[in-house]
Amino acid sequence: MVLFERFELLDVFGPLEMLGYVPGLQITLLAEARGPVSSTPGPAAVAEHALAEAPPLDMLLVPGGIGTRKLVENDDFLAWLRERSTRAELVLSVCTGSALLARAGLLDGVRATSNKLAFAWVTEQGPKVLWQKEARWVWDDKYVTSSGVAAGIDMSLAVVEHLGGAELAETIAHRTEYEWQRDPHRDPFARIHGLVDPEPE
Amino acid sequence: MVLFERFELLDVFGPLEMLGYVPGLQITLLAEARGPVSSTPGPAAVAEHALAEAPPLDMLLVPGGIGTRKLVENDDFLAWLRERSTRAELVLSVCTGSALLARAGLLDGVRATSNKLAFAWVTEQGPKVLWQKEARWVWDDKYVTSSGVAAGIDMSLAVVEHLGGAELAETIAHRTEYEWQRDPHRDPFARIHGLVDPEPE
Repeated sequence: MVLFERFELLDVFGPLEMLGYVPGLQITLLAEARGPVSSTPGPAAVAEHALAEAPPLDMLLVPGGIGTRKLVENDDFLAWLRERSTRAELVLSVCTGSALLARAGLLDGVRATSNKLAFAWVTEQGPKVLWQKEARWVWDDKYVTSSGVAAGIDMSLAVVEHLGGAELAETIAHRTEYEWQRDPHRDPFARIHGLVDPEPE
Repeated sequence: MVLFERFELLDVFGPLEMLGYVPGLQITLLAEARGPVSSTPGPAAVAEHALAEAPPLDMLLVPGGIGTRKLVENDDFLAWLRERSTRAELVLSVCTGSALLARAGLLDGVRATSNKLAFAWVTEQGPKVLWQKEARWVWDDKYVTSSGVAAGIDMSLAVVEHLGGAELAETIAHRTEYEWQRDPHRDPFARIHGLVDPEPE
């Protein structure tokens, strides 16, 4: 999991809650430098490795948050993201994290989604991306991008299902008392935030 | 928010995601000592204050996690919790966090709930508590206790509504693309985990 200053708390810890129960899966927090990294409301998580010293990564997770606005201009970060994503088996993003993947050029020609409130800004970061307005998450080849914040929890359970089967994903959802939305197309927020027309009366 | 070794990630960061958008509300992470505190799957959050040096607290949040098993035996912690809870306006717990409140004697005669998978262990920690088997969360006087992990997100939005009104809570739920379960009685997990009889066929 990649961290950066002003990351969105639940983008990081919703997925890690679910993925943390996958047997054999080892979680590592990464950031520009080792040590504490602050979320938007203040609480900090601890990056165990600097990006440049990250161990081999089978799966890469990129959260969103207001910090992405600055990070899309950081060429060193984008080069790291490009290099590590190319080598990873799965690349996940939550919320505006897909803006970072898009700016790194990783999503050109790929179907992807993002936060619905920030959709206009995100889509400007990748004009060649096949952006999906109405989707809880989108899985295209090895890129799995989710809509805003809480949608990342549903996406993560789909990834758990992919890694360890439906029974494991259901067990984790039950254990965490989470009512898993299994349908990637279910997205009331596309309407709530005006990206698609309201239902006819 | 109180942290301890082996806390449950989402118990902490689900509520903080929602409460973090309440204007004027300041979040502080507390633990036995300042510095990093590890969650069950590994990732660490940073406690800004040692318990003994905590600033005045209007609201206190107690998460759950496997670390509660050890903490219920820690008399210094329980004394701190008792003293600070008595002075706070609202005391919230998620998951097995209510076992800590119960062992501190704070919930005697109070209606409360907890994680459904660990319900037998939790209820043993407070024989005089009015434990509710089927509840997403229970609000009794100043104690608001939620069921397992994800239920804490719904409880937190109810607390946001209490603090800042329904419109603020809905705005935060929409912003974080979270389908808020507003009914504290909705609890499919009480049946899933065998605490109440299944629905008749």
